[in-house]
Formats: sequence, C-alpha cells, structure tokens
Amino acid sequence: MTEHPATAEIVDRRLLRGARTRHAIARHAADVASLEGLTGLSLGRLATDLGLSKSGVQTLFGTKEKLQVAAVEAAREAFLDAVVRPALAAPPGAARLRELIELWGVYAETPLFPGGCFRAANLADFDSRPGQVRDALFRDQRDWRDLIAGELRKAADAGEIAELDAGFAAFQLDAVLCAANTALRLGDKLGDKLVMIKVRRVLDGFLTPPVTT
Amino acid sequence: MTEHPATAEIVDRRLLRGARTRHAIARHAADVASLEGLTGLSLGRLATDLGLSKSGVQTLFGTKEKLQVAAVEAAREAFLDAVVRPALAAPPGAARLRELIELWGVYAETPLFPGGCFRAANLADFDSRPGQVRDALFRDQRDWRDLIAGELRKAADAGEIAELDAGFAAFQLDAVLCAANTALRLGDKLGDKLVMIKVRRVLDGFLTPPVTT
Repeated sequence: MTEHPATAEIVDRRLLRGARTRHAIARHAADVASLEGLTGLSLGRLATDLGLSKSGVQTLFGTKEKLQVAAVEAAREAFLDAVVRPALAAPPGAARLRELIELWGVYAETPLFPGGCFRAANLADFDSRPGQVRDALFRDQRDWRDLIAGELRKAADAGEIAELDAGFAAFQLDAVLCAANTALRLGDKLGDKLVMIKVRRVLDGFLTPPVTT
Repeated sequence: MTEHPATAEIVDRRLLRGARTRHAIARHAADVASLEGLTGLSLGRLATDLGLSKSGVQTLFGTKEKLQVAAVEAAREAFLDAVVRPALAAPPGAARLRELIELWGVYAETPLFPGGCFRAANLADFDSRPGQVRDALFRDQRDWRDLIAGELRKAADAGEIAELDAGFAAFQLDAVLCAANTALRLGDKLGDKLVMIKVRRVLDGFLTPPVTT
C-alpha cells in the first residue's frame, strides 16, 4: 500500500494548509470571543470574516463547541507567548512574579485581544454552562493560579518573603487581575494607571519580606 | 377635554397591567441573562417563554437595548431586596459588613438567579461594549463598592478596626466576590464551603482591630 510520492506530497500540503487555516480561524475566533463572548461565535460568521467557505470551516472544526474550544486554546497559546514565556527569563520567586504581573498589565492594556484578558472575559460567561468549553476555561485558570502559587512558594522557600498560604494568595491575586481587566475596559487612561497601581499594591502585600529575628 | 370616568379607569388598568407585565418580563429577562448573558436576550424569545405576543413585548420595551437595561434594573432590585436591605438591620460598620457578605454568599449559592451573581456574570461580558447596558452595570458595581467602602469607613471611624484605604479594600473585596461567584458555579458542594471560607478570610483581613497603645 505505497502511495505515489507526488500524491503524498499533495496530501501533506493540504494537511499543512488545513492546519495553518485552522490556526488562523481559531485565532480570529479568539478575537471575536474576546469582544463578544464565545457564544457569539458561529462557523458561518467566521467563514464570512475570513473569506472562506462555510463548508470548509465546518470540515476543519465540525461543531460550534469544537470551534469554541479551539478559540480557548488559541487564546491560551497567545497568553503563554505574551506573558508566561517571557517572564521565565526572570529569576524564580518574587522577581518572576513581578515580571508576570507587569507583562499581564501590558497584555490587558494593549489589544492582543480586542476585549482584553480572554480568560476574564469568558469565564464569567461560561461558568454556568457545563461542557468542554467550560472545562477548557477552568483548566486554563487553574494553570495560571498554580503558576502564581508556585512562584510565591519558591519566594517563601528561598526566604525572600514571609511564609504565606500560596494558594489563597494566588486566588486573591487572580481575582484582582480579573477585576482590573474589567476596569481597564472602560478605556480611561488615568483610570488605567490607577488600576495597575492597585494591582501592584495587592502584589506588594504578598511580597512582604520575612521578619528577621 | 374631560375623559369619561369609565374610559380613564380602563386606561389606568391597562397602564397598571402594562407595568406589571413589564416587571414580569424584566425579571424573566434577568434570569435568562444570568445564565446565558445579556446578549442572549431577544424580545421574541421572551415573548415565547412567557406566552405573550412579540408585538406586545416590543410595545413595552421598544428596543433590545432597553430590554437589557430593564433586565439590569430588575436584577439590581432583586439584589437590593436579598442582600442590601436585610443587612441594614445590622448595626453600621463591621457587623453590617459581615452581614452583607454572608447574605451575598446565600444570594450567590441559592438560585435567586440561575447563573449566580448577576453583576459578576454580565460585567465581564459587557465591559468592552460602550452603551446604556454597560453604563447601568458599572453604576450598579460602583454603588455596591461604595456601600462596602462606606461601612469600612464607619468601622474605622468608630475605632472598631484599624485605619485602612476603604476604597482600595472595597475594590479587593468585590474582586474576590466575583471570583468566588465563578468558583461557586462549578456546583461542587465541598468547593462551595471552601470558597466562602476564603471570602471570610479576606474580609477578616480588612477587619483587624486597631492596635491599642
């Protein structure tokens, strides 16, 4: 069952084109969902936006739910590229945490997604709807909180900061980031500065140095 | 230009019936929006749900945006009845604040709205869409934060708690309530208990007694 090399090459190219198109559609879906919510997505609308055939988009994604999950994954990848990966250059612990929060601030203020923080925009919308989309969003939130908690624990273990309940602190920090994202969406430049000052104050509260005896 | 009394009475009755129907529709709209978001609302869908004519619902509300604003107002009224007004029975300051948070916990856990906290569910969805709906949601959030900040200030002024930045504390508390609402939506009973424990811990952090000298 050997295939003619030329045919195999064509199939490969098609697959590659399919994967690239899939990625482009998922990224655009994340943009739309960031602004209008994941429920606003439809295979037909995305096809029109991107000048593709609806049947082509349908072949690539199958169902609306699969498209929504692909949008969550595309948003997650973009977040890792913009915030998490660059912060790994900073030393672990307090310094990396400060870097994560500053990069998050840039991510939320500049239009990587037109609606700001993707997770914040969509979690509240999907939390009452069990299914694959909610699961993907919650997994993403858990990973983000675990990352914050992990860096707090490293900072405490290294004696950089006072002992604390890292999981509880991560819950609070993430909550403040979600609220900050909402406030940032008002588009008030002075307000934006004040919001990031609040976020840094909350972080500073958790990064207090240990009491030396 | 005097009207026949009987005619006036009929008009009055119609107006009253209109107002009552309007209220019932707005409340149902709030239920739908709590679960599926304010964008999910449509005049036609509500008419079908409530067994009314679409033209009748259209006459009462006019546009989808007016219906959405009415849903926000109905949700706000229900919140005031369930959380704010009963808490006013507690003495001002720390006691009232604890009561507000406990009542909020009941409100978010029990299905006053099927999707939990209405404000939390819809603010994230509408923050990127300027207009009357966003304005109504932000006004409601501001009032809620102002109420929390006011009680914190009373507590500090009365010497019940240590001096604090009440506005900043209210921002943090509200952020944690939003995050708690999202967590509560997972419908995990043990999780629910843990979430309210976290909320109370955050509140306790702000209600520390002043240092006596």
